[in-house]
Amino acid sequence: MDLVTIYWENKAVHLIDQTLLPSEEKVISITDYTDLAEAIKKLKVRGAPAIGVAGAFGMALASTYSKKTDKTDFLKEMAEAGDIIAATRPTAVNLFWALKKISDVIMENKDREIVEIKRLILEKALQIWKDDIDICNSIGKNASVLFRSGDRILTHCNAGSLATVKYGTALAGVYYAFNEGKSIEVYADETRPLLQGARLTSWELNKSGIPVTVLCDNMSASLISRGKINKIIVGADRIAANGDTANKIGTFGLAIIARYHNIPFYVAAPLSTFDFELTDGSKIPIEQRSSEELSYFNKKRIIPEGVRIYNPAFDVTPSNLISAWISEKGIAEKAEKFKEWL
Amino acid sequence: MDLVTIYWENKAVHLIDQTLLPSEEKVISITDYTDLAEAIKKLKVRGAPAIGVAGAFGMALASTYSKKTDKTDFLKEMAEAGDIIAATRPTAVNLFWALKKISDVIMENKDREIVEIKRLILEKALQIWKDDIDICNSIGKNASVLFRSGDRILTHCNAGSLATVKYGTALAGVYYAFNEGKSIEVYADETRPLLQGARLTSWELNKSGIPVTVLCDNMSASLISRGKINKIIVGADRIAANGDTANKIGTFGLAIIARYHNIPFYVAAPLSTFDFELTDGSKIPIEQRSSEELSYFNKKRIIPEGVRIYNPAFDVTPSNLISAWISEKGIAEKAEKFKEWL
Repeated sequence: MDLVTIYWENKAVHLIDQTLLPSEEKVISITDYTDLAEAIKKLKVRGAPAIGVAGAFGMALASTYSKKTDKTDFLKEMAEAGDIIAATRPTAVNLFWALKKISDVIMENKDREIVEIKRLILEKALQIWKDDIDICNSIGKNASVLFRSGDRILTHCNAGSLATVKYGTALAGVYYAFNEGKSIEVYADETRPLLQGARLTSWELNKSGIPVTVLCDNMSASLISRGKINKIIVGADRIAANGDTANKIGTFGLAIIARYHNIPFYVAAPLSTFDFELTDGSKIPIEQRSSEELSYFNKKRIIPEGVRIYNPAFDVTPSNLISAWISEKGIAEKAEKFKEWL
Repeated sequence: MDLVTIYWENKAVHLIDQTLLPSEEKVISITDYTDLAEAIKKLKVRGAPAIGVAGAFGMALASTYSKKTDKTDFLKEMAEAGDIIAATRPTAVNLFWALKKISDVIMENKDREIVEIKRLILEKALQIWKDDIDICNSIGKNASVLFRSGDRILTHCNAGSLATVKYGTALAGVYYAFNEGKSIEVYADETRPLLQGARLTSWELNKSGIPVTVLCDNMSASLISRGKINKIIVGADRIAANGDTANKIGTFGLAIIARYHNIPFYVAAPLSTFDFELTDGSKIPIEQRSSEELSYFNKKRIIPEGVRIYNPAFDVTPSNLISAWISEKGIAEKAEKFKEWL
C-alpha cells in the first residue's frame, strides 16, 4: 500500500480529506494550525497514530508561521497552539504523546534562537512522521506471523493506511501477509455512525487488491457462527497498563462475540498508544460526539425530533478478552509483557 | 398506543408506509394483491405478525377482486396468489401460517359457491387481524410482569405496534408496564441497514410518551457495562421447537453480550411465530437482501465499487442464550414448556 495519508511539503501539511472518501479522493493543504485542529476535530484526518502525526505537524505549522520575535511571546504562542490542538479529541493518547515530544524539544532548547527552535520543532515533527512509517512496517511484520493462507479476518473501523502515515496498524499485518503471498481476505464492519469501515477500510483494501467484504456492525456473530470469519484484529486509541484497550465503539462487543465463538481477538498499535500511567481502562476518557452523527444521514433526518441519542466514539475492551497485542516491539499475549517493551 | 398499522376498509387494505417514517406518516391504500406482495417485499409493511396479517389481507384482495366465474379457475387463481404472496419474504413463519389459515378455509369450503368462499376468506382474514390485536395485548400483559420501575430496557429492530396490528410483541410489555404506571425507559438499537430502531421504534415510543434513546448497534456492550441497560427484549421471526430464535440480524450478538454481562434476554412473540416442525434453528431459511441496502444511503454511495457486501436480514440466536420466551399463553423459561402452549 503506497498510499501516504499525511505529509509535510512546502511549509504546508497535506492530507487526504477522509470525510470525502470513497466518492472523492482529495488532498487538502493546510498552513494554519487552527485549521489543522479543525481537520482533526472534523475527522478529515483520523486514526490514533495519524492524529499524533497531525498534532506534531500542527505544532510545526504554528511555529513556522509564528511572527513573534520575542522569545517569551513565541513560547507562549507555542503553548497556546499545543492547548488548542490537544483540545480536539480526548481519547487517542498518541496525540498527547506527540505534543509532548514537541514540547520537550521546545523546553530543552528554549534558550536557543527562535529560528533554531523552529527548525528543531519541524525536525522533530518530520521524525515523528518518518518513525510512524517504520513503526507501522514493524507492526505489520510482527502481526503477519498470526495470519495464514485461507484466513478470513474481521476488522472494525479503520486501522489501516488511512489511520497512520502508511501501512496502518491492524491492517499492516494484513498487507504484510498479503505481500508475502498469503491468500487472505478481510471482512470490514461498516462502523456506525461514521462508516469508517464501509468508506475507508474497504476503499484502501480494494485499492490494494485484497478481497474485502463489508458487513453491518450487527452481523459479526452470524458470520463467525457460519465459519466465515476465523480471526479478528483491530487497532487501538489508548491501551492502559493492564491491557484494557480503548478503541472505536463496537470493539468491546466484538471481543465478547469472539470469545463466545473461541476465535482470536488481536489488538495492533504502536507503543505511543500505550498509556502506562493509567492502571486500567476505567480511567480512559471517552469522547462523546454530536447526536447529529446519528440523527442525520446525508442531510436526511432519520431519527424523530424529541428522541434522545447516545453517541460515545469509543469503548474499552477488558484486557482478558484480548488474545494478544502487537506493537513494533513484538507480540504480547499478556499485559505483563508490556514492561519488556519499554 | 392506539396506532393501527394495517386494516381493511371499503374493499381495500390500508397501511402505514413504514419506509417513509419518521419524516412522513402516510397511510396507503392497496386493492391489488400483487401491490400488497410488493409492499411486503419493500418493507412498507414489516414485522413478522404484521406480515402475517398482510398476507391474509392479500388473499382477501385476490379473492375480492377475482373475476373468475368457474370454480376451478377461481381456486387456481387463489393458489397462484398464495404463491406470489408467500414468495415475498422467507424467514418470518407468520406469513406462511396466515396463508395456511386462508388456504385451509378455501379447502374446507371448496364445494361452496365462489361468492360464499370469498366471504369466508375475508371473514378469516379479518379474524386473523382481530386475533393479532388480542394476542399482542395478552403478550403485553404477560411480559409486563418482567418489568419494574427503573428498568432501562434495550430492544433491537422494531417489534412494536408497527410490527403488528397494534401494541407489538417485544414492546407490548413495555406499553403495558408503562400504562400500569411503571417508570421505565427504552434504549433502541438503530438497527442497520434499514434503521427500523432509529426510524420506527423511537418514533412510536416517542409518540406514546415513553422515554427513548437511540444508539448504534455497536454500542450495547458499552452501555450495559456502564449500567445504563438492565434488560433486553426483542421480537422474533421464527422460533424452532428447541427455542432457537430467528430475529433481525444483530439479535444473536446482543444475546451473547447480554449473557456476558449477566442481564436477562427475552423474546416476545405470538404462537404463530413458533415453527414446531423445525427441531432447531439451523433449518430456518435466512433471507439475504440486496447489497444496495448497505452500499447506498439516501442515494449517496457509501461503499466503493468492487467491494463485496454481506447482507443477511436475520440471524439465529441459540436457545440457551434466551432467558425466557413470552407468548399470549404465558412465559416459558425453557423450550420444553412450549408443549403446554399447543
